[in-house]
Amino acid sequence: MIEETHIEALRVLLGEKGLLTEPADMAAYETGARYDKGRAAFVARPASTGEVSAVVAYCVKNGIALVPQSGNTGLVSGSTPDGSGRQGVLSLDRLTTPFQLNRVNRTLTAGAGLRLSDVNGRLEDAGLFFPIDLGADPRLGGMIATNTGGSRFLRYGDVRRNTLGLKVVLADEAGTVLDLGRGLRKDNTGVDWKQLFIGTSGAFGIVTECVLNLEPLPRQVATALLVPASPDRVPELLVAMEDALGSYLSAFEGMSRNAVAAAFSHVPSLRNPFQGGVVPDFVILTEISRTSPPREGEQPLDAVLEEVLGGIWEREETPLADAFVGPPAEMWALRHALSEGVKHSGRLIAFDLSFRRGDIMRFLDHMKAEMPQHFENVTICDFGHIGDGGVHFNLVVPADDPRLSDGAFEARLREWVFMVAVEEFGGSYSAEHAIGRKNQVFYDRYTPEAVRRLAAGLKAITSPGPLGSVTF
Amino acid sequence: MIEETHIEALRVLLGEKGLLTEPADMAAYETGARYDKGRAAFVARPASTGEVSAVVAYCVKNGIALVPQSGNTGLVSGSTPDGSGRQGVLSLDRLTTPFQLNRVNRTLTAGAGLRLSDVNGRLEDAGLFFPIDLGADPRLGGMIATNTGGSRFLRYGDVRRNTLGLKVVLADEAGTVLDLGRGLRKDNTGVDWKQLFIGTSGAFGIVTECVLNLEPLPRQVATALLVPASPDRVPELLVAMEDALGSYLSAFEGMSRNAVAAAFSHVPSLRNPFQGGVVPDFVILTEISRTSPPREGEQPLDAVLEEVLGGIWEREETPLADAFVGPPAEMWALRHALSEGVKHSGRLIAFDLSFRRGDIMRFLDHMKAEMPQHFENVTICDFGHIGDGGVHFNLVVPADDPRLSDGAFEARLREWVFMVAVEEFGGSYSAEHAIGRKNQVFYDRYTPEAVRRLAAGLKAITSPGPLGSVTF
Repeated sequence: MIEETHIEALRVLLGEKGLLTEPADMAAYETGARYDKGRAAFVARPASTGEVSAVVAYCVKNGIALVPQSGNTGLVSGSTPDGSGRQGVLSLDRLTTPFQLNRVNRTLTAGAGLRLSDVNGRLEDAGLFFPIDLGADPRLGGMIATNTGGSRFLRYGDVRRNTLGLKVVLADEAGTVLDLGRGLRKDNTGVDWKQLFIGTSGAFGIVTECVLNLEPLPRQVATALLVPASPDRVPELLVAMEDALGSYLSAFEGMSRNAVAAAFSHVPSLRNPFQGGVVPDFVILTEISRTSPPREGEQPLDAVLEEVLGGIWEREETPLADAFVGPPAEMWALRHALSEGVKHSGRLIAFDLSFRRGDIMRFLDHMKAEMPQHFENVTICDFGHIGDGGVHFNLVVPADDPRLSDGAFEARLREWVFMVAVEEFGGSYSAEHAIGRKNQVFYDRYTPEAVRRLAAGLKAITSPGPLGSVTF
Repeated sequence: MIEETHIEALRVLLGEKGLLTEPADMAAYETGARYDKGRAAFVARPASTGEVSAVVAYCVKNGIALVPQSGNTGLVSGSTPDGSGRQGVLSLDRLTTPFQLNRVNRTLTAGAGLRLSDVNGRLEDAGLFFPIDLGADPRLGGMIATNTGGSRFLRYGDVRRNTLGLKVVLADEAGTVLDLGRGLRKDNTGVDWKQLFIGTSGAFGIVTECVLNLEPLPRQVATALLVPASPDRVPELLVAMEDALGSYLSAFEGMSRNAVAAAFSHVPSLRNPFQGGVVPDFVILTEISRTSPPREGEQPLDAVLEEVLGGIWEREETPLADAFVGPPAEMWALRHALSEGVKHSGRLIAFDLSFRRGDIMRFLDHMKAEMPQHFENVTICDFGHIGDGGVHFNLVVPADDPRLSDGAFEARLREWVFMVAVEEFGGSYSAEHAIGRKNQVFYDRYTPEAVRRLAAGLKAITSPGPLGSVTF
C-alpha cells in the first residue's frame, strides 16, 4: 500500500529495530485495547526526539499519514490505524529516556514512552509519585494526549495540572521540535503552548518528552463504603464529607448495584461486605489520606473517618443509610474489579461522560427511568468519579443479542445517550478518553462552528501534515 | 485624536454611563498601579458580554485599537494605553454579573469585573473561597489575563488550575463570543481553548465571564518563622518540610534581611520577633493549614508544626538555625508589609522572576556576589515564594540617585538581571505578572522563533484586530 522506496528511506532513518513491516510484528500495534483492528503501512519506532523529527519530516514531505501510538490502552480508537493500510503507526515505545528526577523541584523529566507503572516504581524510593491513578497502565505520551484523570482527581487533578513541560515534534516539513517549559511552576511569558498538546489526541504534534510534577506518596490511608439514604442524597453526602474533611478527601467514587454485582460474580474471591450480601442500589467508596507519616498523639485516620461519618449519621434526616470503614486494599479491590466484571457480563457499550457534580445522580436517575422506553433489555452498570463529575456509563446487552449483528443498534444507542448527556444535562461526551476516531462524529456535532474553525486554523499553523486519528 | 463620529457611535452602543471621554474621568484608567501614565482616546465601560462584543466589532471594523483593563493593579504596563492618545481603554469594571454559586459543584460563575475581595467576601458564608492569595485586589479578568498565583500556590496552584470555564470576546469583525467550558472538571473533547486566554494579557480576546473552582476555607492555620543554618540550606529545609507535612503545607515564603528590615522601618508597629532584634540573612515564613474543623482528640496544628520543626532541629547537621511558631496574623502582617516597605526605601526596580525550586538560592547568592561588580549602590531586597519557585527580585537605589535621571541605567540593569535569570539560570522573566508593554522586548528576545511564529499565527486566526498592549 505504500511504495517500497519510502520503506527503505524510513529504514535508513530508523535502523532495523526502528521499523516494523512484517504483519506478525505489526499486529499488536494495529489492534486497539478494546475496539478495532486496523492495518498499518508500517510501524516506526524512533528512539529519540531527533528520530521522531526525521520520520515526521519525511512523511509530511511525502504525504504519508502517521498515527502516533503510546501505550495503546485507550478506548476511543485514537491510537490505531484505520483499515486502509495507508497510515503508518509512530510508536513511542522506545522513547524511554530521559528519566531525570529533580528532588528539590519535585519534578521528573521523562521520555514519553515510559509506562506509568514503571515511572512510579522507580520513584518509590524517593517517596514521590506521579499522582494519576488509573486502572490501565498507559505510557506517558498517551496520558498527555488524553489528559486522563483517574480515581484521585479530587485530590491531585488531571495530567494537565501535573505537566510542567513538553517536548513536541510538529507535523510540518521540517519536523519542527518545540521545547515547551523546563519545569518552572510559574512562568507567564506568552501563550502556554504545551496546553495545546494536552488532551488533543496527538493531532497537533507528537509529545516525545515531558516534565511532570510529582507529589509526596500518601503514608496513611483510610477508606469506607457509604450507602446513601437514596441515590439523590449523594450530592449532599459529598458536600458533607468535603465540609468535614477538606483536602484529606482523596476519592469519592460511585458504584451502581449492577456494577458491584457484576464484580462479585466475575471475581468470586471478593468479600461481599454488605448486610446479608444484599448489594444496595448505589454505593460510594470514599478515601481519606495523609502524605505525612503517622505521628505520636495523632488520631489514626480510620478513627478520623469513623468520627466524621458518625457526625453525619447523627444528623436529622441523615443522607446516610449505612457506612463502614474497612481495609483500603479490600475496598479498592472491589472498585478495581468493576471494569472487568462489567466487561464479562455481556456485550459492553461504554461511555466516558462527565457532568457538573450536582447533575450526575439526576442523569443516572433519568436514564434508569427512560432506558426501558427507548431500548429494551439494556442493563445500566455505571460507576465513576462523583467527586470530579466523571461517570463511566456502561451499558450491557446479552452477548448473543441479535441486535448486535449490525452496527445500527449500537449507533442508535450511542446517539441517544450522547444527546441526553450533552444536550439535556450539559455534560461532556468524553471526560478523560479524548476523541479518537470513535468520537469524531460527536466532535463534529457538538463543537460550536466558531471553535471548529479555530481548531482547523490552529492545525494548519502547527501540524499541517496528516497526523493522528482525529480531524480537527 | 479619534474622529467624533466614532465617539458618537460608541456612545450609542454603550449609553452615557458606558463611555468616558472627559480627561478627568479618564485619568484613573490612564494611570498604571506603579508605572506609566498613558493617554486614552476614550474609556469604554460595557456592562454585558453583548456590549463588549458590539464595541469590539465596531472598533475592529474601524481600525481602533483597544486595551482591555481589569482592576489595573498590574505592574508590567499591561492594562494602560500608550501615550499616543489613539488607543481606547475597554474597562471590565461594570461586568459585575453574574454571581452564581453552585455549592455541590464547588464552582462560581462570575462576571470578569468582580474584585477578588468582593468574590471572597460573598463566598465566606458558604465556607468556600477562590484560593488565590494576593497582596493586591485585582478584578477576575486581569487575574486570568496574568494567570497570577500568589502566596498559597504551593497548596492551591494558579488561576489556570482554578479556572473551569471562560466567556471570551474575540477582536474580529463580528466580535465573536466564545463560550468555553461550563464548569465541568473533566472534559477532553478537543483543544482546551480557554487555556489560550489565560496568562496572555488580553491580546487574544477579552474575558467577560468565568467559571471558577472554589476550595473549602481553611479552618485551622499555624505559622512559623524559620531561620536556615545558611541560605543554601533552604532547599533542604523545603524538602524536609514537604516530607514531614505533605499537603498540610500551604506556604513556604522566603524573605531577605533587606526586605524584612525595610518592612520594620516602614511599619514600626510590626513586632520584631528576632533575638535581640537582629534580622537574619534570610527567613522563611511557613504555614500549615487544615480545611477540616478542629476535632476532639486531634493534636492542634501549632503542636504539629512544633513537633515537625523539633524533628528537623534534632537532625545531625540540621538545616535550621532557629525556628519559632507564632500567631499567623502577626507573621503574615510582616510578610505583607515587605512590598510597601521595599517601595518606601528608595527607588524600586522590581522583577518578578521564577526558577526551578533548587535554583532560587543559587541565583540569589550569585546576584549578591555579582551586583557590586556590575552596579554600585544597588540594594537587593528580594522576597518570594520558595515553594513554587517565584522570586520578587527587588532592587532599590537611593531616590535621589543621579543615575535615575534618564532611563539608560534602569534599562542596563534590567537587561543584566534578565540575562542572568533566563540565560544562566533557566528562569522566567515573568512568573505571574505576564508580559505587558514593559516585558515586550524580553518576549521578543527570549521566545524561540518557532514559538513566536505560532503565536503570530494564532493571533491572526483568533483576534486579528488591534487588541491589548502586547504584540504577539
